[in-house]
Amino acid sequence: MSKKYTVGIDYGSLSGRAVLVDVENGDELASSVYEYPHEVMYEYLPDGKTKLGVDWALQHPQDYIDVLSHTVPDVIKQSGVDSRDIIGLGIDFTACTVLPVKNDGTPLCFIDEYKSEPHAYVKLWKHHAAQKYANKLNEIASGSGEDFLKRYGGKISSEWMIPKAWQIAEEAPDIYDAMDKFIEAGDWIVWQLTGKETRNSCTAGYKALWSKKEGFPSKEFFKSLHPKLENFVDEKIGCAITPIGSKAGEITEDMAKLTGLKPGTAVAVANVDAHVALPAVGVTEPGKMLMIIGTSTCDILLGDEEKLVPGICGVVEDGVIPGFQGYEAGQSCVGDHFDWFVKTSVPESYYREAKALNINIHQLLRAKAEVLKPGETGLVALDWWNGNRSVLVDVDLTGLILGMTLLTRPEDIYRALIEATAYGKRMIVDTFRENGVPITELYAAGGIAQKDAFMMQIYADVTNMNIKIADSKQAGALGSAMFGAVAAGSAVGGYDDITKCAKRMGKVKTKYYTPIPENVEIYDKLYAEYKQLHDYFGRGGNDVMKRLKLIKKQSKED
Amino acid sequence: MSKKYTVGIDYGSLSGRAVLVDVENGDELASSVYEYPHEVMYEYLPDGKTKLGVDWALQHPQDYIDVLSHTVPDVIKQSGVDSRDIIGLGIDFTACTVLPVKNDGTPLCFIDEYKSEPHAYVKLWKHHAAQKYANKLNEIASGSGEDFLKRYGGKISSEWMIPKAWQIAEEAPDIYDAMDKFIEAGDWIVWQLTGKETRNSCTAGYKALWSKKEGFPSKEFFKSLHPKLENFVDEKIGCAITPIGSKAGEITEDMAKLTGLKPGTAVAVANVDAHVALPAVGVTEPGKMLMIIGTSTCDILLGDEEKLVPGICGVVEDGVIPGFQGYEAGQSCVGDHFDWFVKTSVPESYYREAKALNINIHQLLRAKAEVLKPGETGLVALDWWNGNRSVLVDVDLTGLILGMTLLTRPEDIYRALIEATAYGKRMIVDTFRENGVPITELYAAGGIAQKDAFMMQIYADVTNMNIKIADSKQAGALGSAMFGAVAAGSAVGGYDDITKCAKRMGKVKTKYYTPIPENVEIYDKLYAEYKQLHDYFGRGGNDVMKRLKLIKKQSKED
Repeated sequence: MSKKYTVGIDYGSLSGRAVLVDVENGDELASSVYEYPHEVMYEYLPDGKTKLGVDWALQHPQDYIDVLSHTVPDVIKQSGVDSRDIIGLGIDFTACTVLPVKNDGTPLCFIDEYKSEPHAYVKLWKHHAAQKYANKLNEIASGSGEDFLKRYGGKISSEWMIPKAWQIAEEAPDIYDAMDKFIEAGDWIVWQLTGKETRNSCTAGYKALWSKKEGFPSKEFFKSLHPKLENFVDEKIGCAITPIGSKAGEITEDMAKLTGLKPGTAVAVANVDAHVALPAVGVTEPGKMLMIIGTSTCDILLGDEEKLVPGICGVVEDGVIPGFQGYEAGQSCVGDHFDWFVKTSVPESYYREAKALNINIHQLLRAKAEVLKPGETGLVALDWWNGNRSVLVDVDLTGLILGMTLLTRPEDIYRALIEATAYGKRMIVDTFRENGVPITELYAAGGIAQKDAFMMQIYADVTNMNIKIADSKQAGALGSAMFGAVAAGSAVGGYDDITKCAKRMGKVKTKYYTPIPENVEIYDKLYAEYKQLHDYFGRGGNDVMKRLKLIKKQSKED
Repeated sequence: MSKKYTVGIDYGSLSGRAVLVDVENGDELASSVYEYPHEVMYEYLPDGKTKLGVDWALQHPQDYIDVLSHTVPDVIKQSGVDSRDIIGLGIDFTACTVLPVKNDGTPLCFIDEYKSEPHAYVKLWKHHAAQKYANKLNEIASGSGEDFLKRYGGKISSEWMIPKAWQIAEEAPDIYDAMDKFIEAGDWIVWQLTGKETRNSCTAGYKALWSKKEGFPSKEFFKSLHPKLENFVDEKIGCAITPIGSKAGEITEDMAKLTGLKPGTAVAVANVDAHVALPAVGVTEPGKMLMIIGTSTCDILLGDEEKLVPGICGVVEDGVIPGFQGYEAGQSCVGDHFDWFVKTSVPESYYREAKALNINIHQLLRAKAEVLKPGETGLVALDWWNGNRSVLVDVDLTGLILGMTLLTRPEDIYRALIEATAYGKRMIVDTFRENGVPITELYAAGGIAQKDAFMMQIYADVTNMNIKIADSKQAGALGSAMFGAVAAGSAVGGYDDITKCAKRMGKVKTKYYTPIPENVEIYDKLYAEYKQLHDYFGRGGNDVMKRLKLIKKQSKED
């Protein structure tokens, strides 16, 4: 049999990226990026005159189709591979990124009469205008003792599907009535590729309150939110949930023309961008937590049993790897944290020094910070500049730095901010462990993980665990390509399950990080200080952060 | 009678400044500054080879004499005044700035055999190498229940006279034996001017543990520190204490030649630089607290009764104005705080903007910060970058900022730091009041007070009190000149007491600051947050700052 290949497409917030990889070993032969022409619509619809409200964030579904027609032919061409040897395709998507469509899959915003209606477009994951519906949902669910809340650490997010649907039902009832389906963009693009609607267990579980055992919340619950929502599941989802790792269908004739793939090429059910990265680092078993480190961090971990862990984002059976409980947790301010610092708090002289050395400001600060010993800064910070996702699930918490003297330098604070995110990570690890979900090893993916040895060493020292690093810069797209190979199956040169596939195609770098015992000892002490402050300010000891936010709000309104 | 004049000399840490003023109204006719040629000796003696230890800070007494010979003739010449019309001279000095001398007043460092002996020189107030003696003194005094501790808020400072004397006794017993006197530089210069030793009640009270009622601590106590110190008071002080406001003597023939003043011109007993400023703003009665705002802030307040106020620097009868209890408190990080911020934490773009607007960086930050409403930053800080002087008396406390988000800007933090010093001020005011020392009005002197209307308004709003501003840039030198006029007496055109003098010669600007009620209301809430954090971190709720300092120390030593 000739060499076989597979394509993975990672749909991000601003672009889609395709990779074409070797099914035998996961080696990347080509990659191609297409930036969405409509980007993110924060202020206006494409007509340039329909204004959007505060906290809105929309996208245009045509951009997703255009990613297919641009990137797939491009990677085929670049690699010189015969499209008959491409056996599968997988995609992953930001989530919950969701759109209203007709029964045939046509997005409402493609239909003339709805083109000027904001609610007819894709609501991107970071559309935050449904916050008040999320708040009400949490209140109602908590009041009626809904069990599902526990699977989501006690609170659901405004970014998820039900608050977004509720916003339409309340604010645009005609659109709610006109849509036959309300569907994740990932599932929608798979529908376009295969001509057949499927819904994947990952987004259903993490973003739409579904569980394999209990299904969706009850009609009574939906009714208690809004009368229109009573039959939301039957009317607007109306489709079985298919586990991650399944084949969704095959490339249609039309899509074959658009992409250059052969008709009949296997297509995997859609996945979520972070979750799909786990097999890409070769992990398909419990105990190994993957951190996808970017502006924020998403943590993915498998477990054998469903444990209710307070403050995590969710636990979903078949959510990440079939047959396992998939746990998700997160930190809302990581790369953003360091960017805030270099933009607001680093003096001119440091920029001049970096320029003279021909390095960027982060590199300069790291060089100055990494010669310090743990504890030498005298500082400790709480990494809550953007609230706390796990394990406090509280957007109203804010940042803290403590320990400054007149001799404190920018590199001291920079190091303290990095350490704060490491302590936040350890808090997540400890919380999983304390609730019966074991963690023995860490994996890291994303740009910071690849580039920042200094930070990774701190993470290893603070958590006292080895850290292995993804060997692909496109861990998401690689993971999707792997699910494409599994959808194809071994008969045509793919794999029968993701575990076998991950053993061959998943990759980590040979160099990994191990804790340095004398650092671990000091960081144990510093973490104890972090924890005491974390609990004091985060668990009701002193709600000063919330009160200051309230005073700030009142002060701005006056 | 022709118009009369008086001269005041303010001896600072790096220079001495003389002013010549009109006795009738305090108007300044001339001023002159002389910078000490030896500056502060931190590393070497004048021989350039004798190395000093860590935390040493010495001065050369010849520099003080040179101030007289340079500045006094200069102000006489500049003003064109006939020296016969100059009726008095007063001086104020940093304290405790202290030197060993022979019985005739000759400094030991003027004598060849001691020229290479560091302990023979002037120990400047900021000589901190006696810290271990101060620690031991506090321990012993606290253990034996010495009453005097209560007059100093419970703890004495390493900057004061007895730790400095103890350091000599322990580390240079020959010098201890060779010195006939250990004397404040202020008293020494008055001795040089008049040919007669006097010791003023201000330095004796605030720096040498003396009180009018109880005198110095007992011989037993001194003996318990060090055998050599048993008779310290008799042997090395051996001079009565003269109240502030008294005449010390008259200009000698020699000094008349040196200064251009007439022989017989009245000289006031010496004073301390901060304390002497109180009458210069016209205050000679209880209830009006003067803040001298510089790199740090010194607060001076009169009271009718001796109250033991926890955490103040000292209470001394006749210490500031004869007939009153003089209270001193302080904040150790004010101007230094803002300087730290602009040096370490303000981005390049702000410097560029300031340059384009042709203003300095403080002015730019103030302009951006002053348009914000109280509470709008969402931040609160603890102003402990340099420890806390009053009311916690704890050098091991460190700074804190709380409330940051990804939208926090440099001007937000700058404002929060200013507000933190204002909250620290209110803490001092409240502590005085709670302990029976009333305060009804604030006065401010020093460069920041003169220039920074934004900060003064915040102080007025946070403390809910009017703030009046000194109308002299040289409040210290003016105060000294006033005490010179009192030393001369009314018979020759001066004043018989400082109260009458202050009514005529003391000055505040006509414009003063009044609290803005809506700001007061918000600051009451914010101060409550500050206070809760202040007490939590400063009074044992969470000693994280001390533990971090310890970890830092260990980490640096490893």
